[in-house]
Amino acid sequence: MLKLKKIAIDTYRDTVAFMARDCPHYRPEEFRAFKKILVVNGHNRLLATLMIVDDKCLLEGDELGLSEQAFRRMGLPEGSPVAIAPAEPPRSLDHLRAKIHGHSLDRNQIEDIIKDIASHQYSEMEISAFLVSCAGFMTTEEVLALTHAMSHVGVKLQWNTETVVDKHCIGGIPGNRTSMIVVPIVAAHGLLIPKTSSRAITSPAGTADTMEVLARVDLSMHEMQQVVEDCKGCIVWGGHVNLSPADDILISVERPLGIDTREQMVASIMSKKISAGSTHLLIDIPVGPSAKISGAGNALRLRKLFEYVGAEMGLHVEVIVTDGAEPIGNGIGPVLEARDVMAVLRNDLDAPGDLREKSLRIAGSLLESDPALRGGSGYQRAQELLESGAALRRMEEIIEAQGRQTTPVALGELTLDVCAAETGVIRTIDCFRMARIARLAGAPLSKGAGIDLFKKVGDKVEKGMPLYRIHACFEADFGFATAFAQEESGYHIGSAAS
Amino acid sequence: MLKLKKIAIDTYRDTVAFMARDCPHYRPEEFRAFKKILVVNGHNRLLATLMIVDDKCLLEGDELGLSEQAFRRMGLPEGSPVAIAPAEPPRSLDHLRAKIHGHSLDRNQIEDIIKDIASHQYSEMEISAFLVSCAGFMTTEEVLALTHAMSHVGVKLQWNTETVVDKHCIGGIPGNRTSMIVVPIVAAHGLLIPKTSSRAITSPAGTADTMEVLARVDLSMHEMQQVVEDCKGCIVWGGHVNLSPADDILISVERPLGIDTREQMVASIMSKKISAGSTHLLIDIPVGPSAKISGAGNALRLRKLFEYVGAEMGLHVEVIVTDGAEPIGNGIGPVLEARDVMAVLRNDLDAPGDLREKSLRIAGSLLESDPALRGGSGYQRAQELLESGAALRRMEEIIEAQGRQTTPVALGELTLDVCAAETGVIRTIDCFRMARIARLAGAPLSKGAGIDLFKKVGDKVEKGMPLYRIHACFEADFGFATAFAQEESGYHIGSAAS
Repeated sequence: MLKLKKIAIDTYRDTVAFMARDCPHYRPEEFRAFKKILVVNGHNRLLATLMIVDDKCLLEGDELGLSEQAFRRMGLPEGSPVAIAPAEPPRSLDHLRAKIHGHSLDRNQIEDIIKDIASHQYSEMEISAFLVSCAGFMTTEEVLALTHAMSHVGVKLQWNTETVVDKHCIGGIPGNRTSMIVVPIVAAHGLLIPKTSSRAITSPAGTADTMEVLARVDLSMHEMQQVVEDCKGCIVWGGHVNLSPADDILISVERPLGIDTREQMVASIMSKKISAGSTHLLIDIPVGPSAKISGAGNALRLRKLFEYVGAEMGLHVEVIVTDGAEPIGNGIGPVLEARDVMAVLRNDLDAPGDLREKSLRIAGSLLESDPALRGGSGYQRAQELLESGAALRRMEEIIEAQGRQTTPVALGELTLDVCAAETGVIRTIDCFRMARIARLAGAPLSKGAGIDLFKKVGDKVEKGMPLYRIHACFEADFGFATAFAQEESGYHIGSAAS
Repeated sequence: MLKLKKIAIDTYRDTVAFMARDCPHYRPEEFRAFKKILVVNGHNRLLATLMIVDDKCLLEGDELGLSEQAFRRMGLPEGSPVAIAPAEPPRSLDHLRAKIHGHSLDRNQIEDIIKDIASHQYSEMEISAFLVSCAGFMTTEEVLALTHAMSHVGVKLQWNTETVVDKHCIGGIPGNRTSMIVVPIVAAHGLLIPKTSSRAITSPAGTADTMEVLARVDLSMHEMQQVVEDCKGCIVWGGHVNLSPADDILISVERPLGIDTREQMVASIMSKKISAGSTHLLIDIPVGPSAKISGAGNALRLRKLFEYVGAEMGLHVEVIVTDGAEPIGNGIGPVLEARDVMAVLRNDLDAPGDLREKSLRIAGSLLESDPALRGGSGYQRAQELLESGAALRRMEEIIEAQGRQTTPVALGELTLDVCAAETGVIRTIDCFRMARIARLAGAPLSKGAGIDLFKKVGDKVEKGMPLYRIHACFEADFGFATAFAQEESGYHIGSAAS
């Protein structure tokens, strides 16, 4: 038996155990043949990657160290006795190998894999193998089975009402913060819209990051339910709600790999919405040259798959295809995007028109699911709620209920204006590149970092006119972002005549 | 700038950098958005995974820690100034994504990927993605391109002779140590056979592990060339020779995933043999129910692919299909296998006949590539060299030249005899299970650990008779191995009549 010790190293997504090389009970080198080790104390069990320590100050021979993440997950005090064993590979790896070698999987096999993934039995390399084998080929039955399995390993929310609406954008468009406008409109009308959002993974801001500028978002499930009861809506981070733990793990590998297949996207989104107890779901598919979906044909195929899975799983799905040619709104990054959202809700004259218009369209469509509303009047009702200030008031109530941020977050003070290299008309703005610049500037972790767009597609510019301003809070970030932007601005300017 | 510090943690295959959370120059959390960080000091550059330290004793704010592996690879003294930047993803990931989404790759694209893998630009998750996408589908042109690319990123050995022979077994059969008998026979005849072998990765012993019981095997390339010049042959570990660094990295992910496709196997083996300067290669494909290849049809397809790639790459390939129904020889594990090998070379009466016979067959086939030898007389010549003691003498010379082990390695003293549960005839021995038991007992790291087989397929046994003996050197290993063996011995005994 070894004595448990917490090692003050934050290993992020890895669960790491440390053993001294001169451990008197086990020979740590031997465990390396096994992918992971199992740390055991009665019913407390943890799978971890092993690292070997050659420093007495860090770890004694009779101790087993756990990184901060691993220690938390083990849930035992320091000094607790633990035993070690080589970890058996999860049994569902056999199904994975079958899939890799070209076989289709049935419902039970997919369920086994998803259960093992959700309980952290898979390494990143195995998750990657699963994702790539699915990217190669997936039958519609497999998509359904995957959706079903993922929605069943998480928590399922219950609501005491017949209609629960939700919206989801497949992403890829910077600044696209419609949820923060749609939720207060729909909630102000009286429909239930318990919105959980993600934090940014590869983008400069997720809805949760932006909402966090205004209010607390890391609510427990109980707290979230309280807010929804009081306000009919919420805008919280999904991380504490645990709607689809397997999906969260899959995404953590999918994103850095840049795999983005229709099948996985649909299973991912639908599983979360089913767990969230939604009855009516609106999906926003932005289409544009630098958006995730670049052509009408692809958008159509994706729409059909959403509709099919929705129908099979008993969820009413409405899909809208929107313009994804450029960022929505003017700000990119949490503080700047929150500014745009509040400007729309306040009906400010300089509020970004594209963000307002798109939000009204989505809110209007969701309002149509209210049987009490006359068919076709959703958009008008949404407009009314926005213009009357009812949506703004509801937003303030939601902010209050979630917990208002008392210390305002400042915009990054290190700035650089990126200017037009020539005179002409802005033809395109590269969404991917703008996101990258904002990220290098520090967003979303630096909430005040990001990009403020002064010009959008169709605007005329003269050489030397500022196109956008980079904001950063730290010198190193500022350096990375400005160097990248100066290499290539992300704006394509054409001659005015063409 | 941060000051370089070596952290006494052995992170095995991972290259890990450590930053203090309160680093005054960078904010470590931000770098997490990027898969890896780049550590830079002039031309010295290193890609590493970042971990964040919350312990002043381990790391100060202005220091950058590197794990033992990473520090070695960085190659700078402690205290050297280093800068940090987010690592750009390798450009060849675009090709990888194309492959994942179903496109075939051309020669240049595969070359880009292999170069990036060989220079440690890919994470395990990306390597896994590459392997699985190749497992899904690979054209013959892609196999050729992969072989070509892998043989070009490593060192290429040159020999001053026309004929350079080599042998390779695709593996999977415990105890199959023919190389250690074939090399001295062929070298005694006068043909050049510079054999590099691997250490065990998932098996209980590789040829390098077994040879190491008798002699040094971790020779530098220069030392290896010297041994071959003196003795015409060698049996060394390939790890210091760096024949196919990309392949070594691919294998490190392939094995734990259990992906084993024909295409990858052929590219892997052929690339190493081409780099080794071989002109004639004999491939051994054992076929059996628990071997890697289980049917004649699969063996045939594999043989054809070896022959095709060999022909295209200008290497003469001979493929033999052998009996893989049970372990070869009696010992499993380095010390026990070395015992079997020396018994055959000494022409001991109790030397395992199957190991002797198979080695003679392989050596005989290789000797046929000597133009001076009369066609069809290879086997007879091999037998002559073995029986006359010429092969044993040559083995002793090779051992001497590589560096004889002066302290003999003892057999594990913790033993358990696993006995027949019933009376009958041994029908099958599960190669996979025997390998697993020997590994749990501590092989190959505990050289004296392993299994000594008393009975083979076809032998009659009575209930309670010992089938094999488990040897282990450490209590923990002994416990793991005996528990696993008692659960299921790996022997299938049928009634004598059937």
